[in-house]
Amino acid sequence: MVNPVIAEVTRGARIESVHRGAYAVVDAAGRVVASAGDIETPVFARSALKLMQALPLVESGAAAAAGFGERELALACASHSGEAEHVATARRMLAAAGLGEDALGCGPHWPRRVPDIVAVANGPGAPSRAHNNCSGKHASFLVTARHLGAPLADYLSPDHPLQAEIRFVIESLSGAPLVGDVCSIDGCSAPTFALPLQNFATAFARLATGEGLAPERAAAARTLMSAAMALPWYTAGTDRLCTALMEAGAGRLYVKTGAEGFYVAALPAEGLAIAAKCDDGAARAVEVLLPALILRHLDAPARVADPIAAMARAAVRDWNGTIVGEVRAVA
Amino acid sequence: MVNPVIAEVTRGARIESVHRGAYAVVDAAGRVVASAGDIETPVFARSALKLMQALPLVESGAAAAAGFGERELALACASHSGEAEHVATARRMLAAAGLGEDALGCGPHWPRRVPDIVAVANGPGAPSRAHNNCSGKHASFLVTARHLGAPLADYLSPDHPLQAEIRFVIESLSGAPLVGDVCSIDGCSAPTFALPLQNFATAFARLATGEGLAPERAAAARTLMSAAMALPWYTAGTDRLCTALMEAGAGRLYVKTGAEGFYVAALPAEGLAIAAKCDDGAARAVEVLLPALILRHLDAPARVADPIAAMARAAVRDWNGTIVGEVRAVA
Repeated sequence: MVNPVIAEVTRGARIESVHRGAYAVVDAAGRVVASAGDIETPVFARSALKLMQALPLVESGAAAAAGFGERELALACASHSGEAEHVATARRMLAAAGLGEDALGCGPHWPRRVPDIVAVANGPGAPSRAHNNCSGKHASFLVTARHLGAPLADYLSPDHPLQAEIRFVIESLSGAPLVGDVCSIDGCSAPTFALPLQNFATAFARLATGEGLAPERAAAARTLMSAAMALPWYTAGTDRLCTALMEAGAGRLYVKTGAEGFYVAALPAEGLAIAAKCDDGAARAVEVLLPALILRHLDAPARVADPIAAMARAAVRDWNGTIVGEVRAVA
Repeated sequence: MVNPVIAEVTRGARIESVHRGAYAVVDAAGRVVASAGDIETPVFARSALKLMQALPLVESGAAAAAGFGERELALACASHSGEAEHVATARRMLAAAGLGEDALGCGPHWPRRVPDIVAVANGPGAPSRAHNNCSGKHASFLVTARHLGAPLADYLSPDHPLQAEIRFVIESLSGAPLVGDVCSIDGCSAPTFALPLQNFATAFARLATGEGLAPERAAAARTLMSAAMALPWYTAGTDRLCTALMEAGAGRLYVKTGAEGFYVAALPAEGLAIAAKCDDGAARAVEVLLPALILRHLDAPARVADPIAAMARAAVRDWNGTIVGEVRAVA
């Protein structure tokens, strides 16, 4: 089965490139409201897992004990751009547990934007582990492990009690078994998992509504999702789609990207979640498809819908800024 | 017709993403030696056109009059990384015609690598038009137009005598008609064209062998291709595939990338050229496919073939440097 075209890239009057992929729009009972392509074969969800990976932080009481507010909770679920306040927040989270950034198991990489790259080059000279886009998640792992009295040194091992708990949480929310080759290693060296899009979306519809969840899990999910929606910049950063969509959604919309063209959106009031994956791993394809799908399923006034509609097409410009084509959703 | 998978990206024991595309291996008579997918529908060749776009520079005598050597000729056909010597060479090319970089019609963008970004930020503060990866091509256009006595101000117009000549050159080499929506605008604001892969590869097999060309065109093509193969760093830069493949090829191999997953390779001794396009525009797919195809068709000793074979697989690493998957050719 070949997945359908979900986005196309034009140059002048011709299509220059096309992206194939699949998506599922699902409710908390697991009913598929809309879909395209293969939603049954597991695909790696990568950083779109982060809100689920942060549930033990809240459920264990570690977040409350560390005095974490919305900024820290949002960063725990973030793939941030390495802007100064992202990095400072990750360091504060570690400090709350008496830890330094040498405790982080994620490797260093440069920030996303030129001004932040230049600031790092002219300051410390090279990025640290706190600049890794997943540093909030790793700080959250460490704070939780310390709170639970679990060892810190091997906190990224799939057999560590926290990672085993996270795998169990994701299995129970999604109904997808996480054994065998669906278990792998993410870019930040943490365990990651592949799930069918239908199951992944079901998990997020449950998290967004609380339906079918124990009260403490429903409360933890609401706490994390509310923090992300209240402070969208902490989930991603300047000029990032997750941030722009949640800003436009104004509390009606949760959005999180994963690497290799994976995205999840949750619509709490509608009781729906959307999971999408571009076959070839291109973010740009899902970044026009997702706004188009959100518009179809979000019951929102024009002041919310109009900016989202504008995101379903992205101009392709030459380096003089002239529009020479576009990336547009095909759905 | 759906093109076949040309490359796959693994994570652990699973395939995470796949890339579809097409390729043609063709001789100077236009005979297809090997192919996959659709090689008849025109696809934009983007910067892979550059050697053809530079033919008038040499054929008109403009390059000789300006005193251009191999560095300048290689940069005329380059998509460079904006490293200091690339930018300095473009400026020297302009100065030879009494022009400054304000004459360039390409817009500015940041260099490709962090140290060059930081050097620009700490020096002029922002990139100039000479940093555009196409600045050598634009300098070549301007030097040629001035030599021909053609106007400079509208040198990027499709109707400018130089651009009209370039279109005619590409049509005559490839046999593909360049009218209608196959004519568009490149990222550097210059005219660009879509051609069938079969025709595009035929043109480069002719350029690489001189077969069927007038002596002056054959000589100009040899001059440009020899310059690129002699100084591979000027075609791309540090840690770039065009440069690495031509270094490994040691005079037996010409390679040039275009944007949106297009690549061309020419094998002069074998009388063949290879054109490939990834449907979704991803360079990483063709960057493993092309070495695999070159290996099949290049008659080369192990000291040439072994480093090329190593390029047909690219490790996927986490930020700690641990290998967690690979990008590999499927051919």
